[in-house]
Amino acid sequence: MEEKLRTGVDYYPEHWDKSLWKSDVELMKEAGVNIVRMAEFAWSRLEPSEGEYSFGWLDEIISMFSDAGIEVFLCTPTSTPPQWLFEKYPEVIQAGSDGKRIPIGIRGHRCLNSPVYRSLSEKIITKLVERYRDNPSVIGYQIDNELEANHCYCSVCEEKYREWARQKFKSIEELNRAYGNNVWSGEFSSFSQFKLPYGLHQSWLNPSHTLDFHRFASDSTVDYVNFQLNIIKSIDKDALVTTNNWLCENMPCFYDLFEKLDFVSYDNYPPVKLPEDNETLYSHAFHLDLMRGIKRKNFWIMEQLSGITGGWAPMSQTVRPGMLKGYALQAVAHGADAVLHFRWRTAVSGAEMFWHGIIDHSNVPGRRFEEFKQLCSEIARYSGLAGSQVKNNIAILYSAESEYALKLQPQTEGMYYFGQLKSWHDAFTSIGTGVDIISEKEDISGYNIIIAPMMFITNKETMDNLYNAAASGAVVILTCRSGVKDSFNKCIMQPLPTVFAELAGVNISEYDPVGDRRLGLKITSSEWEGHFKEPGQQHLCTQWCDLVECKSAVPLAEYEEEFYKGVPAVTHNNYGSGNVYYIGTVLDRKSYVAFAKMAAQKSGIRYIENLPFGIEVTYRYQSCLEAENKECKTWQFVFNNTLSKQEVTINGKSINLEPFGMDISILK
Amino acid sequence: MEEKLRTGVDYYPEHWDKSLWKSDVELMKEAGVNIVRMAEFAWSRLEPSEGEYSFGWLDEIISMFSDAGIEVFLCTPTSTPPQWLFEKYPEVIQAGSDGKRIPIGIRGHRCLNSPVYRSLSEKIITKLVERYRDNPSVIGYQIDNELEANHCYCSVCEEKYREWARQKFKSIEELNRAYGNNVWSGEFSSFSQFKLPYGLHQSWLNPSHTLDFHRFASDSTVDYVNFQLNIIKSIDKDALVTTNNWLCENMPCFYDLFEKLDFVSYDNYPPVKLPEDNETLYSHAFHLDLMRGIKRKNFWIMEQLSGITGGWAPMSQTVRPGMLKGYALQAVAHGADAVLHFRWRTAVSGAEMFWHGIIDHSNVPGRRFEEFKQLCSEIARYSGLAGSQVKNNIAILYSAESEYALKLQPQTEGMYYFGQLKSWHDAFTSIGTGVDIISEKEDISGYNIIIAPMMFITNKETMDNLYNAAASGAVVILTCRSGVKDSFNKCIMQPLPTVFAELAGVNISEYDPVGDRRLGLKITSSEWEGHFKEPGQQHLCTQWCDLVECKSAVPLAEYEEEFYKGVPAVTHNNYGSGNVYYIGTVLDRKSYVAFAKMAAQKSGIRYIENLPFGIEVTYRYQSCLEAENKECKTWQFVFNNTLSKQEVTINGKSINLEPFGMDISILK
Amino acid sequence: MEEKLRTGVDYYPEHWDKSLWKSDVELMKEAGVNIVRMAEFAWSRLEPSEGEYSFGWLDEIISMFSDAGIEVFLCTPTSTPPQWLFEKYPEVIQAGSDGKRIPIGIRGHRCLNSPVYRSLSEKIITKLVERYRDNPSVIGYQIDNELEANHCYCSVCEEKYREWARQKFKSIEELNRAYGNNVWSGEFSSFSQFKLPYGLHQSWLNPSHTLDFHRFASDSTVDYVNFQLNIIKSIDKDALVTTNNWLCENMPCFYDLFEKLDFVSYDNYPPVKLPEDNETLYSHAFHLDLMRGIKRKNFWIMEQLSGITGGWAPMSQTVRPGMLKGYALQAVAHGADAVLHFRWRTAVSGAEMFWHGIIDHSNVPGRRFEEFKQLCSEIARYSGLAGSQVKNNIAILYSAESEYALKLQPQTEGMYYFGQLKSWHDAFTSIGTGVDIISEKEDISGYNIIIAPMMFITNKETMDNLYNAAASGAVVILTCRSGVKDSFNKCIMQPLPTVFAELAGVNISEYDPVGDRRLGLKITSSEWEGHFKEPGQQHLCTQWCDLVECKSAVPLAEYEEEFYKGVPAVTHNNYGSGNVYYIGTVLDRKSYVAFAKMAAQKSGIRYIENLPFGIEVTYRYQSCLEAENKECKTWQFVFNNTLSKQEVTINGKSINLEPFGMDISILK
Repeated sequence: MEEKLRTGVDYYPEHWDKSLWKSDVELMKEAGVNIVRMAEFAWSRLEPSEGEYSFGWLDEIISMFSDAGIEVFLCTPTSTPPQWLFEKYPEVIQAGSDGKRIPIGIRGHRCLNSPVYRSLSEKIITKLVERYRDNPSVIGYQIDNELEANHCYCSVCEEKYREWARQKFKSIEELNRAYGNNVWSGEFSSFSQFKLPYGLHQSWLNPSHTLDFHRFASDSTVDYVNFQLNIIKSIDKDALVTTNNWLCENMPCFYDLFEKLDFVSYDNYPPVKLPEDNETLYSHAFHLDLMRGIKRKNFWIMEQLSGITGGWAPMSQTVRPGMLKGYALQAVAHGADAVLHFRWRTAVSGAEMFWHGIIDHSNVPGRRFEEFKQLCSEIARYSGLAGSQVKNNIAILYSAESEYALKLQPQTEGMYYFGQLKSWHDAFTSIGTGVDIISEKEDISGYNIIIAPMMFITNKETMDNLYNAAASGAVVILTCRSGVKDSFNKCIMQPLPTVFAELAGVNISEYDPVGDRRLGLKITSSEWEGHFKEPGQQHLCTQWCDLVECKSAVPLAEYEEEFYKGVPAVTHNNYGSGNVYYIGTVLDRKSYVAFAKMAAQKSGIRYIENLPFGIEVTYRYQSCLEAENKECKTWQFVFNNTLSKQEVTINGKSINLEPFGMDISILK
Repeated sequence: MEEKLRTGVDYYPEHWDKSLWKSDVELMKEAGVNIVRMAEFAWSRLEPSEGEYSFGWLDEIISMFSDAGIEVFLCTPTSTPPQWLFEKYPEVIQAGSDGKRIPIGIRGHRCLNSPVYRSLSEKIITKLVERYRDNPSVIGYQIDNELEANHCYCSVCEEKYREWARQKFKSIEELNRAYGNNVWSGEFSSFSQFKLPYGLHQSWLNPSHTLDFHRFASDSTVDYVNFQLNIIKSIDKDALVTTNNWLCENMPCFYDLFEKLDFVSYDNYPPVKLPEDNETLYSHAFHLDLMRGIKRKNFWIMEQLSGITGGWAPMSQTVRPGMLKGYALQAVAHGADAVLHFRWRTAVSGAEMFWHGIIDHSNVPGRRFEEFKQLCSEIARYSGLAGSQVKNNIAILYSAESEYALKLQPQTEGMYYFGQLKSWHDAFTSIGTGVDIISEKEDISGYNIIIAPMMFITNKETMDNLYNAAASGAVVILTCRSGVKDSFNKCIMQPLPTVFAELAGVNISEYDPVGDRRLGLKITSSEWEGHFKEPGQQHLCTQWCDLVECKSAVPLAEYEEEFYKGVPAVTHNNYGSGNVYYIGTVLDRKSYVAFAKMAAQKSGIRYIENLPFGIEVTYRYQSCLEAENKECKTWQFVFNNTLSKQEVTINGKSINLEPFGMDISILK
Repeated sequence: MEEKLRTGVDYYPEHWDKSLWKSDVELMKEAGVNIVRMAEFAWSRLEPSEGEYSFGWLDEIISMFSDAGIEVFLCTPTSTPPQWLFEKYPEVIQAGSDGKRIPIGIRGHRCLNSPVYRSLSEKIITKLVERYRDNPSVIGYQIDNELEANHCYCSVCEEKYREWARQKFKSIEELNRAYGNNVWSGEFSSFSQFKLPYGLHQSWLNPSHTLDFHRFASDSTVDYVNFQLNIIKSIDKDALVTTNNWLCENMPCFYDLFEKLDFVSYDNYPPVKLPEDNETLYSHAFHLDLMRGIKRKNFWIMEQLSGITGGWAPMSQTVRPGMLKGYALQAVAHGADAVLHFRWRTAVSGAEMFWHGIIDHSNVPGRRFEEFKQLCSEIARYSGLAGSQVKNNIAILYSAESEYALKLQPQTEGMYYFGQLKSWHDAFTSIGTGVDIISEKEDISGYNIIIAPMMFITNKETMDNLYNAAASGAVVILTCRSGVKDSFNKCIMQPLPTVFAELAGVNISEYDPVGDRRLGLKITSSEWEGHFKEPGQQHLCTQWCDLVECKSAVPLAEYEEEFYKGVPAVTHNNYGSGNVYYIGTVLDRKSYVAFAKMAAQKSGIRYIENLPFGIEVTYRYQSCLEAENKECKTWQFVFNNTLSKQEVTINGKSINLEPFGMDISILK
């Protein structure tokens, strides 16, 4: 793959009369598009009936793009099987949690484990890749579209799930033990009794079982991706292969999903409506950092916000001037090497017709098209960015397993896993220090600060990494609801935070799930207090209150209310040459920000003292070693994620930013 | 049918011990009842087992009414088939959107397309009409009861729907084209793949498909009505035949439904609780005008509010003194020639036992009975009204298709089709000008003002009518979300308002679905501004903001906020000798009222400047030509739809009105 | 059974590694436990496969408890059949209201009417009781666990329900008449058409039918309990037998359920979060009095609140200091002779793992364990309480049928049956007078005050009792929504309150269901007014307004608003030598309290004038006759159910109470 920045669109030639193709390609070229993605929903056009293929139309449009110097990224069209396929092979239809096939007619309704479906997928993918492997304009393939960890309840999945469990546990006795099935006479006396957890959202099911089912569903999705990957690479080993990720109800484990793929790509739809107060968590950059962290390298945006969203729900308000361009550049600032806007022109039919593209139904290019054009030319101006990478000294650990386990068992009203991660991301972002979000199982030895929020489901690897990091001098931040569960989603019979107790130097004597209540919190650490803009103010905590007993740790804050008034809430422990913080509650925004400053100072990370709210500062670095012929540059991005003009001084330089404006500069 | 005003009740002799019949009939006679409706739920009593008929009881009670000089309107009892029928012919039971028969035990659960059900219906209807065709007291028949556009998902309906589509589209290719099935590989390669849209409320279904399914459901209901009509008329060609209409979730097309029926009838249940502020849309008269507009002539009320509603939901508050009578007279004022109160006495059993009739469970006539008696005698006093008709110079166009299509795809939070129609109806009603609400396909050439709100689904006929009306000098009012779709519910690929662009003299460059937000609006037209009670106030708009580009039009108002500050929101265009207004947003009540005055003035319609809130003024006219022996009179109705006494001066006459009081007078 | 106070825990040896048993038993002994409940979920451990029994482990732990001097209460383990049983006999699985078997995996999913299930139940129960009948440590059995009136829709239940109806009504004609099936052609022409009310929550079903179905479900549960009882008693006639009651969605008739059982037991989980204002109904004591009233004697708590609740929902906040002990003592104060805490140690697996026991997951005894220990020693200190009983002069009548019928047909927004009972219970509790809550069919001749709220479903027995009580001098309090229905859940065709009209001396001319509105109420009785702390204040009523016509009664309060301003709302009638009050509306808390004082004064019951909010005063009496060797004592309990310290003077003695503190003393 040529190392360059790509700007493009998602294009659906099969939706439009051929008479429009020429002017579309010309207008794209004029706008500065250098890549298009196509065909992820085009199975019915590529294979109108079983075994009858029709690639002529795709040849034609690819050739038009080729002539215009525009690269093509194709998709395997398996997301939406054609109607003849469902009619002929109803066994490929996904079953809902009642075990019944869901009605077809909507997309995404197929069983990824179905052997019939896999065989049919293989045929169309083979045809597709064989046809274009020698076409230099076709640079790669997106597998399927927005895959979820498919919770299918068909008989094929039941048998596979049983086999999966048999492989994992070897014997039914071991499974019973691992799941704690002795509760409520839930013990299986034979694997034949082991079924899918029908009625998943009934929270009376054993959480050990339901977490494993989700793991199985994630594994099935990963297996399906790798099945497609192998087909593609066996035909065209040099093709770039990815799949477009999104944040959905049942997320597969991202790290497994992309392990064998060439790079991560992401569908990026920041919320159009900005929150009205600064206390609301609004950190869309979080998702971009999460995506970059999956493979710890740059990524692509396969679908980027272009207009009003909606379609199956009432429409959102429209994107404000600057948003289309600004959010695309924000993605670049966080490591995107390609941004493809969804979609060129808004569909005039189908359920998604009010999910707006760059060009409206009218086919008259308007305000958003003009902005897109500016975006293309601006990105072209920064072509030197190609090959640069993002690298930070601060890491937040993400645990796919804890995320899902906490969804299965919400701990208290209003507390959710991503909220905790976002609070920390927001705090460090708001002081201008970049943050990586990486798998809990990654090597963290290079980081100065590691934040490991809500390590609910524990595993030895992560635990060892955190102990080692602290021992070697890192700042490690732990929070409440850590160490709660073993890997089977059973509670650990030790004083909390169990496996992390020695690291944090604390025991939790008990806890109070206060939900939406807000309680007074007194910061007793003058170091922390010193980092508030206005020291001496009252602070509040909420949702969860661990009553912390200091063993080797010392308190930094204590509760001001309830029967645990005076009990430590936040502590600091010296472990090896490192500093370990335990946050036993959920803080307010100001306290997180001051805490971030304290942690940054402690670990020698430079931060910006008075960055206005909503300004994001990020960096991409050109590696001197890798980029032999390039200069060794540092690119600075300053982004105004607000509806107002802002003036900000960074590194002594005063910068004026329009709403959603981005300033890109090369640091000396 | 004798031309007279009718007042009556719905009576269920089958619910009551025979010992009560005599006193019931006597009390009705005493009250002044001259018509009763009976038998719509009596199938099990008329045919206790298949082929065994039992009409004696009905003969007896009809004869008692006959002796008392009370007319009888009978119903075909097909709404509630007996239990033996469901047991013997389970194939007649309606299927839900999961394709499974719904549990019986509640009413309305039969498939109108079922041949078995139709054959059984035919038998009982034939018996009924043959028995009473020569009985002069029985003047007509209500078909079934409160029919909906039945969304049945049984296999008979699926086959019929497939056939319906085959007739409409001829080929599957044409259907694919019409529906835009190229999106998401939704193309059918054979009609066998064309199914009912199971899981209708899943908004991921293709809206072209779901709109057509509703059209099919509406057609099926209309077909069933005409099937019954033909049976009745073939036996008793002079019988009056209607069906009782109501506003429900899935409304059939009213115009089709009543096309072959003798007159419209309606079940009239105004909300018992009046809104607490004047900004809340409260225009029950809207429904009455909608009903009158179906056949553009007078109509009947088959069920009229008589007491506390409720039964399957917690009860409403009780009807306030004056409401029972006032709302019945309000119906007359809007064109009702008969008002039958539901029901004589409240049921003591069944799910509906807390839906109160005129007389309570106690069987002691009380406050509401006394008011009903007054009503009867008052209507008797105005017998001269018989034959008079309502006729207005202002029409609101109603589109059944747009209504349903907008239900399928809500455009933005808080915006709904009927709300738009009601806003306009409310505005003109509040200045004392009557409004007709008619089908979008009606001949509108006689109207001075035509309001065509949200013409979402377009058709050539309506379009031509509106262009012609404007060309000939009418005021035409168009709004946002017009011209969006073709008749297949696909978006039109032209600048909005597409087919109406020339008429309005505008293009919409883009739009902002602002939902519940309220934005400042500046009225720049001094003519419009001059019609506000207090000029110079701030105005607000909400829900939707079209950014209007004036072509031949001139702006009347502009937005005061957002990136489109200063952009026109409301415009005026001269088209032919007419005036066309385009309202690109949703206004506040005051602005609609001032606009109504401006439009009335422009088209030379007299209106009342300072009508107090809640006072409704309407007219019925005795046609001098038709009513040969009658004088040519104009009846004026002044109704106080508020909880307070009101004094009002109309045409120089001062009128004092009690809460819900009605003043009826003959104009010189 | 030895007459003594018992304190204990629910213990699940099958959940824990054997290595923990010894220390658990020792710690229980140290804490002062003298009873444990075991085995209600242990079927899979007692019968690991069909016919293969494994009692060794239970022998072992029972023997350990025996050695420690701790009694054992065993449970029949039928609540959670093992997985092999569901696999082998799928016909025992409960069917949902769609007629389909519900997915297994959660507890409680079996059909109590299934002959197969009963046969399997009989075998395990027989084995269990035969094994331990001669073990003196095992003193009794709990049948199943938290039984509901199981609404099962399987074919066995359908046939049984049909048979139940056939027995009740003899002929289908009689059933039609009783249900009023003439409405909506609902008549059955044969019992074969009589089905279960599938889709129960569809409120369009005939309420006569749905109430009978609930009666059938209740009868089925009672029958299942008696089936188990007979098995147990046939083997061990001296065993104590009970079942643990709870308040659930579909409650069986408590009086039937416990009729043949030795005593009532109850699972007692007071809400952890106290309401923030004093107007919120918070009367957990209500439930305790309801339980005591079932058999009109002392009862057991089988499960008592021990910590944070939650598990399938987000967790509650934790129990405040004093709550664990205080709520246990509150139960004793209301007649509990045994309190077993649920559970010894929190489960580490299964869906209930966050429903906290006395000891947390950590297995480190903490704050709550210390409080439990104090509780045990405190109860030991009051061992003299054994044999004492609660007896009051005031009774509230509870009607299981009215409760369920009002759930089927909510009368108005915000009004529910238990709310009415609680208002009265709260009023009398807040003036320090104890209240019994007993079946509407109990002998009430000994009571000075009888409150019969919302006697919605009537029966002759209750009616006669109330007339007789009033005639003999009692105070009888009746409310709106009394006399509405006959026993078939049909409305009675008489002026309300129908059968109670003579007793109350009033007729209700009409009613207004005002829902959440609050209307002014003027108290016209100076006697009542005199009991307010601050006379002359404005009062409010809500939800329902009966327009009362006084026949022999006189008004005590009248409405101040609406068209019924001045109409009586509350009345007093002299009936025989008694006083009958009719409360035609829902009062505010202050009015209920003042009313309670007036009624107490009228009937010569001593009450406490200025008891602070949240202080509960109750008494247990040692009967001099029964307790031959005991002194004839009166025990006084003063409980502080608030979060604040309180000082209170009772009978001249000043008492200081910590939050949730209890003062127990013997009155001279």
